[in-house]
Amino acid sequence: MPHSLESLNQASAAEFVGALGSICEHAPWVAQTVAERRPFASLAALNSAFAEAICGASNQARATLLHNHPDLAGKAARAGALTADSAREQTSAGLDRLSETEYATFFGLNDAYRAKFGFPFILCVRRHSKGSILAQFEARLTNSEAVEFDTALGEIARIVALRLDQAVAAPDKLKVHGRLSTHVLDLQSGRPAQGMEIELAEIEPSGAARTLVRAKTNGDGRTDRPLIVGCPLPIGSYELRFWVAAYFRGRNEPPAAPPFLDIVPVRFGIAEPEGHYHVPLLVTPWTYTTYRGS
Amino acid sequence: MPHSLESLNQASAAEFVGALGSICEHAPWVAQTVAERRPFASLAALNSAFAEAICGASNQARATLLHNHPDLAGKAARAGALTADSAREQTSAGLDRLSETEYATFFGLNDAYRAKFGFPFILCVRRHSKGSILAQFEARLTNSEAVEFDTALGEIARIVALRLDQAVAAPDKLKVHGRLSTHVLDLQSGRPAQGMEIELAEIEPSGAARTLVRAKTNGDGRTDRPLIVGCPLPIGSYELRFWVAAYFRGRNEPPAAPPFLDIVPVRFGIAEPEGHYHVPLLVTPWTYTTYRGS
Amino acid sequence: MPHSLESLNQASAAEFVGALGSICEHAPWVAQTVAERRPFASLAALNSAFAEAICGASNQARATLLHNHPDLAGKAARAGALTADSAREQTSAGLDRLSETEYATFFGLNDAYRAKFGFPFILCVRRHSKGSILAQFEARLTNSEAVEFDTALGEIARIVALRLDQAVAAPDKLKVHGRLSTHVLDLQSGRPAQGMEIELAEIEPSGAARTLVRAKTNGDGRTDRPLIVGCPLPIGSYELRFWVAAYFRGRNEPPAAPPFLDIVPVRFGIAEPEGHYHVPLLVTPWTYTTYRGS
Amino acid sequence: MPHSLESLNQASAAEFVGALGSICEHAPWVAQTVAERRPFASLAALNSAFAEAICGASNQARATLLHNHPDLAGKAARAGALTADSAREQTSAGLDRLSETEYATFFGLNDAYRAKFGFPFILCVRRHSKGSILAQFEARLTNSEAVEFDTALGEIARIVALRLDQAVAAPDKLKVHGRLSTHVLDLQSGRPAQGMEIELAEIEPSGAARTLVRAKTNGDGRTDRPLIVGCPLPIGSYELRFWVAAYFRGRNEPPAAPPFLDIVPVRFGIAEPEGHYHVPLLVTPWTYTTYRGS
Repeated sequence: MPHSLESLNQASAAEFVGALGSICEHAPWVAQTVAERRPFASLAALNSAFAEAICGASNQARATLLHNHPDLAGKAARAGALTADSAREQTSAGLDRLSETEYATFFGLNDAYRAKFGFPFILCVRRHSKGSILAQFEARLTNSEAVEFDTALGEIARIVALRLDQAVAAPDKLKVHGRLSTHVLDLQSGRPAQGMEIELAEIEPSGAARTLVRAKTNGDGRTDRPLIVGCPLPIGSYELRFWVAAYFRGRNEPPAAPPFLDIVPVRFGIAEPEGHYHVPLLVTPWTYTTYRGS
Repeated sequence: MPHSLESLNQASAAEFVGALGSICEHAPWVAQTVAERRPFASLAALNSAFAEAICGASNQARATLLHNHPDLAGKAARAGALTADSAREQTSAGLDRLSETEYATFFGLNDAYRAKFGFPFILCVRRHSKGSILAQFEARLTNSEAVEFDTALGEIARIVALRLDQAVAAPDKLKVHGRLSTHVLDLQSGRPAQGMEIELAEIEPSGAARTLVRAKTNGDGRTDRPLIVGCPLPIGSYELRFWVAAYFRGRNEPPAAPPFLDIVPVRFGIAEPEGHYHVPLLVTPWTYTTYRGS
Repeated sequence: MPHSLESLNQASAAEFVGALGSICEHAPWVAQTVAERRPFASLAALNSAFAEAICGASNQARATLLHNHPDLAGKAARAGALTADSAREQTSAGLDRLSETEYATFFGLNDAYRAKFGFPFILCVRRHSKGSILAQFEARLTNSEAVEFDTALGEIARIVALRLDQAVAAPDKLKVHGRLSTHVLDLQSGRPAQGMEIELAEIEPSGAARTLVRAKTNGDGRTDRPLIVGCPLPIGSYELRFWVAAYFRGRNEPPAAPPFLDIVPVRFGIAEPEGHYHVPLLVTPWTYTTYRGS
Repeated sequence: MPHSLESLNQASAAEFVGALGSICEHAPWVAQTVAERRPFASLAALNSAFAEAICGASNQARATLLHNHPDLAGKAARAGALTADSAREQTSAGLDRLSETEYATFFGLNDAYRAKFGFPFILCVRRHSKGSILAQFEARLTNSEAVEFDTALGEIARIVALRLDQAVAAPDKLKVHGRLSTHVLDLQSGRPAQGMEIELAEIEPSGAARTLVRAKTNGDGRTDRPLIVGCPLPIGSYELRFWVAAYFRGRNEPPAAPPFLDIVPVRFGIAEPEGHYHVPLLVTPWTYTTYRGS
């Protein structure tokens, strides 16, 4: 249950820290600093206050903040010793479904990162898939310590914003969500394609496909709700599959075995977690067009 | 080495049967009958003569012709006891690469077919892939005996035509080949896409992809030779893959990680082995269109 | 100023007829009949009551109703002797902008129609353009008298609905409007095309183009409001023009003189006045796709 | 009747000049110089020899060469006093179909050009349409005299090449021709669109359309010969028109009046007279795509 912004503005300092003390991992002092700056006119102002509280803290305090974060897919995670928020976040990125080899890779990267920078690798994992986490790991290991110190604080700011978005109900919204949608037009009949089965899968670095959503197009050729909504779009590789032959079967089409187009795969990458990706299909039994729409 | 039509016309009957006696599996009498009808003005006429020789034979002779064909992926095949032509043909359709489970399936289907019809299942396998052979098997098992007798003779006629096409050099050609080609247009720059890597794979019934061809587009956006040419296009399911991101990298494109389009898969079915399938790609980093062209 | 449904329900019968007596051309008796059936829960119910009042009248009354309608582009129109509603409606279809030749054509068709059927040609002109009015005229002249009697009454029902839609404010809406919209996607950059000039023209039977709307695409690649909205879409032929070269100029494009694509014309027909026509453009400097969207 | 390269190599010098003396307008001395360099192994070598003969002449001789060219659409043209070659060339660009206003414009531009540079405006008009000639006139009037001297000689080289291409038959070809072609694919049925009427028009600066070619697509969806072939493609603006509704009528299409797509206009510019422009149409009754193909 989210807290209303109004109730947070009127609560005692202790109640405020009770409600938002875990927004910053193992650092209730950030919420304490923020409590003194109340009232907040908007969620955006509250979010900025968290950023400024971290920014205004001593180097030592910020270093401790970094240190207190858990490893990604690390020993705490395997032992079930994460905070509830961290556990949910790591699960969302699939870090609870790693093979032994993948765990070994993460352990090795965590160790290499800590050895170089002295603090754990921090990433707002809800904006990533397994593949992009590994890519980030490898890219950031080449940074200087100063750059990584700032990068890690930037990731904490993203984690804070996403946690506030879930913890606080306010009239305004933070821009922390993306949206993935599709639309199928049947250009043989000039109408939205109604009743076409579609499926969205995440393509893992191994090439394996993990189904995320199954849906059927409605009378407007769209899915009743966007394929992904209400969260960041994890950076990664995806495949939309459209059951084209099943849709056209019985619509005046001479049977061909196999049909020219059957299940049409559209593979695309997401690089902007807060973006709107619209990936439509214009289709007849003999052609299709897809594009990044808006 | 193919025999020239002219030399076949002038050869003795014995030489003629020596050259073309194996065109009909274990039935040199067909070539003997054909030899008497020489000379032939064209390969098409020679091919028709084979068809007519079979057609004009007694029911008993035609039944024997059917009986003498080997099982598909049967015991003779595993034991290496096929004629050279049959061995090559069964290999072309992948029947030499079956798993134990697949062998078991074929044995079972062969037995069921023989039990129902009294002769082996005959199919011009060079027009098929593993998946469509199984589909044919199951569909034809539901036929009546009269229909299957004719269907099997029709398949023998296709086998004969393909063997003649390879065995005889003549001014005319039999229409026994198909053609699969592609063409990539870069519609960001309005030019053929030169130097794009592409790959053609057959998609097996299990979903596994077996790479058939790798190629690079030339200055006209085409491959130097068609992807499949000089043989029937095996009925089945295929995937063309286009290395789109690698092509556009460095062509003024801002780097995105991952790119919206990376390796673009185009999945399509082939149902006409003697057809021309042209499957082009019109592409920018943000859209593509494919279609059955001509 | 529209009347509210509530005030019409509560008005005296005389006030009601004062407000809606001209909904049926020269036939206040229709509104009188309707007044007695009050109250109406919705605009749809009020509209049905008008239809039923006409339907329930004697043949004689309905024939008189037809007779009292003015000619289209007839002498009354030229003399300024139309009712205010009729004048507005005939203007909307361009009947006030006819050449002498066109007037002569209309006079001739009106005379022929009256001669055959004995009443004037009645058409809900707000659903038509000049070309489709002439097409209707010619088509309907071939009907039997019985068919035309019903057709004319059906057109009166459409006129009534459109007049009620403008005269009465109610919580519900009649389905008497259409919508024409567009959307431009720049598939060279993968973004909505912002700031592209577009123009919509009606194509008259002579081939002449009459500009209806000029607009510029906004940040979402759309026009701030639909190109046509709040009225029926007149049946006819249209052209959308997109200033493509001007848009791409200066966006990394090498200058070509002339460019491959400059002002792109998209010509399309509208056959469903109450439909939603979405006519988008997917464009780079070297290609475009358009389609009937939704 | 073209002269064969072989016969030109073997002719006397006088015969050679008799055959090719008019290749350079009023300057047989160029052909005389070229005659001495025989034999030529190819048309390309002969063409280079003409270019080198002009290049190697004195400044005075080259200035005289420029001076002796006629004005475009000038008094000589109206008086019928052009050489046969010049007359044909000016006609090809439509300079024999000028209105009085257009003549006045050309006279004015010719006078301004002569006043500034001292020699007539020279342009290889077979590479241009009326609109691009005027655009060239205006652009080149802003050049310096040195630049224009070279530009004019460059245009003479183009005129020479085109005249040689017509006057001499040789095994090789000069790259002086372009090609404009189209191809229509019916993506409702997955086949080339056979029997569709198409028309190519040149769009004049006034907006007027001048029909150049009418054709019907053949069984491969192409025209039997390219729309323009065997000459340069005049720089300018063009419109291809495709009779789409007439093609689809009767092919299972429900009648709509008017149809969504009827005569589809595709407007495009040609900027490379020696290029290959392929402008296809991928079409169903509800969508089309066009692009610069190859």
